[in-house]
Amino acid sequence: MQKNCIFCQIANGEIPCHKIFEDDDVLAFLDISQVTKGHALVICKEHYENFLSTPKDLVHKVMDIAQRVGQVQIQMLGAKGVNIVSNCYENAGQSVMHFHVHVIPRYGKTDSFILEMKDNSKESLNLPAIADQIKLK
Amino acid sequence: MQKNCIFCQIANGEIPCHKIFEDDDVLAFLDISQVTKGHALVICKEHYENFLSTPKDLVHKVMDIAQRVGQVQIQMLGAKGVNIVSNCYENAGQSVMHFHVHVIPRYGKTDSFILEMKDNSKESLNLPAIADQIKLK
Repeated sequence: MQKNCIFCQIANGEIPCHKIFEDDDVLAFLDISQVTKGHALVICKEHYENFLSTPKDLVHKVMDIAQRVGQVQIQMLGAKGVNIVSNCYENAGQSVMHFHVHVIPRYGKTDSFILEMKDNSKESLNLPAIADQIKLK
Repeated sequence: MQKNCIFCQIANGEIPCHKIFEDDDVLAFLDISQVTKGHALVICKEHYENFLSTPKDLVHKVMDIAQRVGQVQIQMLGAKGVNIVSNCYENAGQSVMHFHVHVIPRYGKTDSFILEMKDNSKESLNLPAIADQIKLK
């Protein structure tokens, strides 16, 4: 438990939430800022900074619940699509420094969730060299 | 293997890619549309439509590699953040209907990747009722 971490406090029951799922390791609840109706967060209860620094077994448990939440958003809320998003570090838009996965139901293409990916490869990136640089051993 | 699926063809070696990692189940490679330098995709080789319909053990393997790719993007490319994104269905921006996870290194807040989440809860959503609707059994 990290002092002053709002997600630790939610996991701990100190701050209330609109709960969707809970077990010993994982908690799922509605994001208080509903980007779309049913926008949920799945977190591990233990404090880890983000996706990149969380032990694999906890990432697996969080993803299992994210999958089920997304399925239920489609079945029960009539969502037509779902975005699974986890931001790592402030530069990527992470605002709470406790690992969480957004599960965002989508009801149409134009709503309050905007995800734009612009192709920058015209900047003459050297793809073979980049692939070499980040090749996993 | 799904006929006419470009990711099946990449997994199969029929279409070349800039490979970062490969084992029996998982492949990681550079997205040909580099949103940012080093933008990678992690896929399972077997064909499943998206995150919501992929068996858990394969989701776990894909996420393990996504985590390692993100870590290496920070270590080797100097990224300051990483976004982990998986879009499910066309309404959520999925363009290739074969499960894949984007691992997008970020070098600053203003670049070619735009992720905006606008709070819509002022629309007077009934959060307790929504949580009840999608509560996992």
